Amino acid sequence: MAGVLGQALRGSARRFRGFSNLSPPRSVPDHLRMGEVIEKSHNDVTNVLFCGHHFPASTNYTREYLKGHPFIKVDEVALDEVPDVIHKYHLCVVKNKRLDAMIIAKAVQMKLIMQYGVGLEGVDIGAATEHNIKVARIPGSTSGNAASCAEMAIYLILGLLKKQKEMETIIRENKLGVPVGETLSGKTVFILGFGAIGVELAKRLRPFGVRIIATKRKWSSISLPPNDPSSKALDCEVDHLVDKKGGPESIYEFAGEADIVATCLTLYSETVGIIDGRFLSSMKKGSLLVNIARGGLLDYSSVYQHVESGHLGGLAMDVAWTEPFDPEDPILKFPNVILTPHVAGVTEYSYRTMAKVVGDIALQLHAGRPLEGIEIVN
Amino acid sequence: MAGVLGQALRGSARRFRGFSNLSPPRSVPDHLRMGEVIEKSHNDVTNVLFCGHHFPASTNYTREYLKGHPFIKVDEVALDEVPDVIHKYHLCVVKNKRLDAMIIAKAVQMKLIMQYGVGLEGVDIGAATEHNIKVARIPGSTSGNAASCAEMAIYLILGLLKKQKEMETIIRENKLGVPVGETLSGKTVFILGFGAIGVELAKRLRPFGVRIIATKRKWSSISLPPNDPSSKALDCEVDHLVDKKGGPESIYEFAGEADIVATCLTLYSETVGIIDGRFLSSMKKGSLLVNIARGGLLDYSSVYQHVESGHLGGLAMDVAWTEPFDPEDPILKFPNVILTPHVAGVTEYSYRTMAKVVGDIALQLHAGRPLEGIEIVN
Repeated sequence: MAGVLGQALRGSARRFRGFSNLSPPRSVPDHLRMGEVIEKSHNDVTNVLFCGHHFPASTNYTREYLKGHPFIKVDEVALDEVPDVIHKYHLCVVKNKRLDAMIIAKAVQMKLIMQYGVGLEGVDIGAATEHNIKVARIPGSTSGNAASCAEMAIYLILGLLKKQKEMETIIRENKLGVPVGETLSGKTVFILGFGAIGVELAKRLRPFGVRIIATKRKWSSISLPPNDPSSKALDCEVDHLVDKKGGPESIYEFAGEADIVATCLTLYSETVGIIDGRFLSSMKKGSLLVNIARGGLLDYSSVYQHVESGHLGGLAMDVAWTEPFDPEDPILKFPNVILTPHVAGVTEYSYRTMAKVVGDIALQLHAGRPLEGIEIVN
Repeated sequence: MAGVLGQALRGSARRFRGFSNLSPPRSVPDHLRMGEVIEKSHNDVTNVLFCGHHFPASTNYTREYLKGHPFIKVDEVALDEVPDVIHKYHLCVVKNKRLDAMIIAKAVQMKLIMQYGVGLEGVDIGAATEHNIKVARIPGSTSGNAASCAEMAIYLILGLLKKQKEMETIIRENKLGVPVGETLSGKTVFILGFGAIGVELAKRLRPFGVRIIATKRKWSSISLPPNDPSSKALDCEVDHLVDKKGGPESIYEFAGEADIVATCLTLYSETVGIIDGRFLSSMKKGSLLVNIARGGLLDYSSVYQHVESGHLGGLAMDVAWTEPFDPEDPILKFPNVILTPHVAGVTEYSYRTMAKVVGDIALQLHAGRPLEGIEIVN
C-alpha cells in the first residue's frame, strides 16, 4: 500500500526516497506491547476512519463485524479528503494513504493509527509519537496474512514458470501444447527476508523439491524472545526449511545462486530500492523475480532495464511502485511480466480476521479497556 | 490430447462416447514389460512419425536428441495427412491424433506406437495388437510428467482461489485490493484418481494446511507388485498423505465433502464423462473443479449448466473437450472459468526427458536391442 508515496516520484526514476524519516521497524515482543490501555475516549461515539476506497473489503467487513454496535461509526473517506476530516476521528486505518507529519498534526482526537495488515510505511511514526498517538500493526502470523501471501508467492512463481501470458496468447491463437514451461522442481529459491511470510513460503515450497536459501537480519529469533521455550523448536524448524542461511551482507551472493528470488522484506529506509542494478546484475541470467511485499523494494528503472535486456527471465509483482499501477505502463507489455492488484493478503479469511481485530480494538478503545490483538510500535 | 475424438462429437452434448473399444489400462509392472525385444527393422533408416503440429517441442527436442544419428529420420506430419503416409514409418508418436483400426491397418511397417506422455487414449490398442504392433506409454513417474502436472494443478487451484480473471479486470480498471480471494489453507481437496500425479499433488498440497481425500480403484499397490519391499513404505507414505481413502463407489460422497475437486484419472471407457450431472450436483455449492487429466472426463453440458447456475464456484482446465479449444466457446466467458493450453506436462524438464526416452527407443529399435524406459501394454 505504498502507492501514494510512489506517486510523488512518478516520472523520475521512481526510486523510493520517501522513508528517511522512518525508523527501522522495532522488534517489540507482543507480550510487552499488547494489552496497553489508551485513555478512554470521552465521546458518545467512537469514530473510525478508513482512508481511501481501495481495499473495499477492509471497510465492509469491519462495518459488518460492528453492525450491532451503533456507538462505533465506521467511515470510508476519499484519500484527498482525509486531511480535512481527520480531526473528527479517534481510530484510523490508513490503507494506502500516507499519513505524514502535517496530516497527523490535524488528527487532534486520534488515539491510534493502524494498517490493515503488517506494513506500517503509511505512517510517520515519529510524528505520531510526538502527538501522543499510538501506531500499531496487526501481526501477520495471527491474521492469516502470512499464509495468504505465501500462497500468492507460489501462484506467481508458478505463473512465471508456466508462462501465464504466453498461455493466454496461445489459447487465443487456437494452438495447443505450447509454451514449454519450466518445473519448480529442481530450482533454487532465494527468500529475501525470512519473516512470517518467508517461513510460510518455505514450508509450502519444500515438497516441490527445491533448494531454499534465505537471508534475514537476525536469525536468532523469529518474533520470539530468546528465552521463550518455543524458540529452540522454531530454530530446528527453520534449519529444516532453509538449506543455506545468510545475513544482509549475503544478498548479492545468494542472488547469484538462485533461479527464483522472492522478496518478503518489510519496507523501510534501509530496504527502499534494495533490488537495484547491483542486485539484479548479481542474479543469474534468466532467473525470476517475485515481489509480494512492497513495490518500493524494487528500483523501477533498474528492473525495467533488466527485463528489457532479457537478463531477468520473468517478473511477477503483487505490489508496484505506484498503486494502482498504470495498466498502460510499458513494463506490463513484456510477455514475462505479471501483475496482480495487491491482493496477496486480501483473502476472505485474513480480511475477516483483521476486521475482527480492528472491530475489537474499536470496542476496546471505546470502553477504555486494554488493547488486545495488535502490536503497538511506539 | 483427446481433441480429435471430441471434434467428431462437437455440437452434440460433447459427451465422449468413442472409447467403448478401449480396454481399461492394464496394470503391467514395469519389470515385466520393459526390455522387450522387437524384431529388428530391416531398413537402413528408421522412420519416426510425430502426428500433427501441436506440442511442437516433442518433435523438436527428439530431433535435437537424435541429431548425431542420421539413420533415424524424424518427421512431423499434419494430422489429416497421417493416413496417407503412415505406411512408411516404423515408430509413431501419436500426440493428439487418434489412430483407429483403419489407420493402423495401413501402418504396414509399424513396430511400436507411443504417446509422448502417460495417456494412451489415442491408440486403438486392440487393433494394434491384431496387427502385431506394440503400444507403449512413457511412465509419468520417470519423465517428471507427474511432478509437472501436480505443479499445474496447484497453479490452477490457486488461480481459482485468487480469482485470476477478476484480478486481470481489476488491473485494467486501475483499481486495487480487490477481488477478495480465498486461501487454500483450511480447504478439503478431493483427488479423484490417486495415481502418480495424485501422489505428487498430495505431497505438494500437504503443507498448505488442507484436508486431502482421495479415491482410487485399488489402494493396495501404487504401480508396485505387493511383494515389492518398497510397497509397504509407499503404503505408509500414502497414509500420511491422504486423510480419507475411498474406492470408485465413494466418489459422490467424497465430492460432497470437498471444497476443491482435482481430477487426475486416466481416460478410458469407464471414466469418460464421469464428471456428469450426478457428480456435479453432489459437489458442494460454490466448490471448485480442476481438470489436469483429460477433457473427456467431464461432460460438457452438465459442467456448463453447473457453472451457469453458480453451483460450481470455479472451473479450471488444462485439457478440454475438443483441442485446441475454441477460444470463443461460451464457457470461457464466465469470469470463474480458466483454461490453459494442455501444457501441464509440457515442461522443459519432462519434454527433454521424454525426448530422450523416444530417441533411445528409436535407437534401440533400429539396432534390434531390448526396449528400455517404456511400459508396453499389449
